[in-house]
Amino acid sequence: MVSLFAYCLGSFFLLVFLNFMYKINTLNPKEIRDLIRKGKWNQPTAGIAMGYAQANLVILPKKYAFDFLLFCQRNPKPCPLLEVLEPGKFRTKFLSRDADIRTDIPRYNIYRKGKLETTVNELRNIWMNDFVTFLLGCSFSFEEALLRAKIPVRHIEENKNVPMYISSIPCHPAGVFHGPMVVSMRPLPPEKIVPAVRITSRYASVHGAPVHIGSPSTIGIVNMKRPDFGDPVTIQKGEVPVFWACGVTPQAVVMKTKPDLCITHTPGHMFISDLLNEELALL
Amino acid sequence: MVSLFAYCLGSFFLLVFLNFMYKINTLNPKEIRDLIRKGKWNQPTAGIAMGYAQANLVILPKKYAFDFLLFCQRNPKPCPLLEVLEPGKFRTKFLSRDADIRTDIPRYNIYRKGKLETTVNELRNIWMNDFVTFLLGCSFSFEEALLRAKIPVRHIEENKNVPMYISSIPCHPAGVFHGPMVVSMRPLPPEKIVPAVRITSRYASVHGAPVHIGSPSTIGIVNMKRPDFGDPVTIQKGEVPVFWACGVTPQAVVMKTKPDLCITHTPGHMFISDLLNEELALL
Repeated sequence: MVSLFAYCLGSFFLLVFLNFMYKINTLNPKEIRDLIRKGKWNQPTAGIAMGYAQANLVILPKKYAFDFLLFCQRNPKPCPLLEVLEPGKFRTKFLSRDADIRTDIPRYNIYRKGKLETTVNELRNIWMNDFVTFLLGCSFSFEEALLRAKIPVRHIEENKNVPMYISSIPCHPAGVFHGPMVVSMRPLPPEKIVPAVRITSRYASVHGAPVHIGSPSTIGIVNMKRPDFGDPVTIQKGEVPVFWACGVTPQAVVMKTKPDLCITHTPGHMFISDLLNEELALL
Repeated sequence: MVSLFAYCLGSFFLLVFLNFMYKINTLNPKEIRDLIRKGKWNQPTAGIAMGYAQANLVILPKKYAFDFLLFCQRNPKPCPLLEVLEPGKFRTKFLSRDADIRTDIPRYNIYRKGKLETTVNELRNIWMNDFVTFLLGCSFSFEEALLRAKIPVRHIEENKNVPMYISSIPCHPAGVFHGPMVVSMRPLPPEKIVPAVRITSRYASVHGAPVHIGSPSTIGIVNMKRPDFGDPVTIQKGEVPVFWACGVTPQAVVMKTKPDLCITHTPGHMFISDLLNEELALL
């Protein structure tokens, strides 16, 4: 308990120190990626490079790549592909002209046979020329658009992680990949639902319109107070729970198949792109 | 000349006869696919099963499948994927619950090393268990939406094939596949351009919004009167040429790489799905 407290306190001061050192909030995506590449920033990316799209990372050996690409094609709401690199390629072209996928993400999780083996700050030593990189859209982008339209986002108000639930909605299987859709929930006052649907519909590349509105039990959610991932949030009287497809889905689905090797970003430590969130609405 | 005339006349009477026999315009997609499967209908599909989405077909051996899927992911406007089947699978799931891709298309073109080898009515004898099937959206769907909104579609008015041009817009290459985007052109009176952009934007799965408006030379088109495919159409005084990404692009790009084998539908002889065009706007 004491050591956990000390760890949290230490992390907090490290974050404050790094913020002070690099004035991270004033930096653009390229400058932040440079710091990350040099090993000078390995913290979560929420709240930095505001306005720019961040992306989830999944790296798989080539033998799983066709099936996973097909899974994403069939399930664009939970798995909105922003960029896919050819086998062995580690430089992005679309999300940024200069990024190196092996070094420009603050932390990586390495899974073997579906189990987290280790967490690392860069991949140069373990990179293989059959690695296929998938970068997927993230709800940070549409939450920014909701906030701009004065639509409340409860978990941000309450300074929590978004509540996520394993739903009973099946994904369309593809090759070796199959599993249920994970959904994130944001409670809304009824008069905000239509604008929220309209706004998020514009962002098909970051989960798009909600997949369900109003009745958690219809999609297999029994207890709203016990999300499968993230934190429970307050649902005020008269508010309606609104569910979006969640980027945890592809990771959950991949882990289920226990591939020999899978590398992802460490949760919260995303790839920061040069693409404006606003540009996502025009893809 | 005489034999061509006789062929045309023969085809016309065959079409009239088949129409009379089967009252094709009154049949639903399943009924039409049944006729096609039984070898009783091998004519073009324009103008039948109105309201339902039709799809372009590309079948490639597995060794080309990841690259082609990636090409489509990177170039969604010319290559809007509606459904992809796993290696060896010939039954659709999404576009129809009962269709057999080997038999339910009126005519197929078989290309070897990029050259048209033959044209057949069914694929059962040559089907291989490494064939991967791609079904791509077709502009018939958005043209129906334009006409419903009283936006003129010139080549339909003039009873011609849409004019198509090889533009100087490069596609994003993927693996072995690369090449320029082929665009289709519809001339519009200026006041119809904004509604046409808005309507076709809703149909991302059938080429979506225009890729260019107004200046053919900017996208490398020298002579509007000489399209690379299809027929020239009248551009009236004051009208503006509007260009959409065209489904000929993926076929042109595939042929350029001269794969050992590639099977497509015979132009005009499309796959008729059970999906309403209107449903495409909600994907």
